[in-house]
Amino acid sequence: MDVAGSIEAVRSKVGAARRRGERIGLVPTMGALHAGHMSLIETARRSCEYVVVSIFVNPTQFGAGEDLAKYPRSLESDLAMCEESGVDVVFAPSVEEMYGSENLTWVTVEKLTGALCGRFRPGHFRGVTTVCAKLFNIVWADVAFFGQKDAQQAIVIKRMVSDLNMPLEIVVCPTVREASGLAVSSRNKYLGEHEREEAALIYESLRKCREMVESGVDEVKAIIEAMREVLGKSPDIKIEYVEIVDAESLERLERVRGRVLAAAAVRLGAARLIDNIVVDAGRE
Amino acid sequence: MDVAGSIEAVRSKVGAARRRGERIGLVPTMGALHAGHMSLIETARRSCEYVVVSIFVNPTQFGAGEDLAKYPRSLESDLAMCEESGVDVVFAPSVEEMYGSENLTWVTVEKLTGALCGRFRPGHFRGVTTVCAKLFNIVWADVAFFGQKDAQQAIVIKRMVSDLNMPLEIVVCPTVREASGLAVSSRNKYLGEHEREEAALIYESLRKCREMVESGVDEVKAIIEAMREVLGKSPDIKIEYVEIVDAESLERLERVRGRVLAAAAVRLGAARLIDNIVVDAGRE
Repeated sequence: MDVAGSIEAVRSKVGAARRRGERIGLVPTMGALHAGHMSLIETARRSCEYVVVSIFVNPTQFGAGEDLAKYPRSLESDLAMCEESGVDVVFAPSVEEMYGSENLTWVTVEKLTGALCGRFRPGHFRGVTTVCAKLFNIVWADVAFFGQKDAQQAIVIKRMVSDLNMPLEIVVCPTVREASGLAVSSRNKYLGEHEREEAALIYESLRKCREMVESGVDEVKAIIEAMREVLGKSPDIKIEYVEIVDAESLERLERVRGRVLAAAAVRLGAARLIDNIVVDAGRE
Repeated sequence: MDVAGSIEAVRSKVGAARRRGERIGLVPTMGALHAGHMSLIETARRSCEYVVVSIFVNPTQFGAGEDLAKYPRSLESDLAMCEESGVDVVFAPSVEEMYGSENLTWVTVEKLTGALCGRFRPGHFRGVTTVCAKLFNIVWADVAFFGQKDAQQAIVIKRMVSDLNMPLEIVVCPTVREASGLAVSSRNKYLGEHEREEAALIYESLRKCREMVESGVDEVKAIIEAMREVLGKSPDIKIEYVEIVDAESLERLERVRGRVLAAAAVRLGAARLIDNIVVDAGRE
């Protein structure tokens, strides 16, 4: 496995693979790799001859007062995990290598970034789309892999790729969960043992939504109330949002129709946790 | 010569050239081709085996009240000129093909777009950078060619390419001028015969700047006054701006130092005309 710290080095490695006619897959990460990332890498491995993992804690997607400084960093074990899972090259650039002395250019996606997490993390998605545009241009992959856990991110990136005619495919992979149902996330490291148990209520609230929809309830207000009730079982969970939106436009709904995204963001101890499921109500 | 109306068609043509190992050059235009464009095409021809010319009057770079509707369109003669100059494929998409039903994604460059024309055409450069990002992603060229006449555009695009790590080179070609000194432009078509003579004052004012710098004057205020005086010889010329800025940062200067950009924008009859020169004062 190669490790490239510079744009030039990763381009040279990927360029050689491309000249060999290999299909290039990119898994963009912020490191602190876990089973969710491993699942993305395995999926990439199955459809691509050459797999690139980028590890870059992107400062421009963190807001003031967010967890940039304490975000978990574990490059050595990340590299070992990549090596073990058959990654071809890890691109782990410095902030300076990625942004130089002054970045003036931003990629923004309107509307979709105003919903859900966008309301609570101004500038977050601008940082995500900008760094992804950069990574896509650096690596020139045929396909990039993202997790459904960050549903809004995946939708925003797909839209950017489509609107800007970027010549790559975006594949969204299912959320990986712990036995309790808790979505695997680098930020779970912030949780104490008891908080980790409480955090399982997030997925429980999403399952509640699915149950209600499947049993015929279509009033969004009633479903959200029931979801909030589930989350309320923990006195430590502070709800940021619980929403049911159209799974494509992310627009709010009054009635559940077609494919909807049920999504929640909560604060628990030092962590901000998000999770979601897509429910197909089958009523168009 | 091929003519492609769809993204798929131009990609297929360019992809074949790429597989033959050819260097791909892109000349992005809004049509109404003239000697300036021909010079870009000739330069492309000299360094590229495969030359793509895009012809697209990009609505997102026109502001409200600007000349989108009456912008000169002459596809048939444009195609003949391209054919004659050895272009390999013309990409002439519809607005729908380029933007679909709703574009949500924008590429913006800060700071550099706040100077010169950016002050008078809000949103203009956002439209330019967005459509260029799209064209670069569609064509996947090795190099794209722009004219020095649109100096700020060239600087903004170069910055976008560098900031977003776009894998292509930007080449800026010298301004082509009529015998009178008037910079060749599609918008010269808006000028009557007498206005066309008066328009030569724009370049005369720029030459005045060069003369003064070369004779040792370094006070920007004095130079701009003299330039305005030259333009004032025509009662029909309405000055939008006359500026002397740093040729890289586009920041305003009080004293001429190093490479400076002298730039003017005027209204004359139905036309808005811009022109510029770079003067190297050689004093860092």
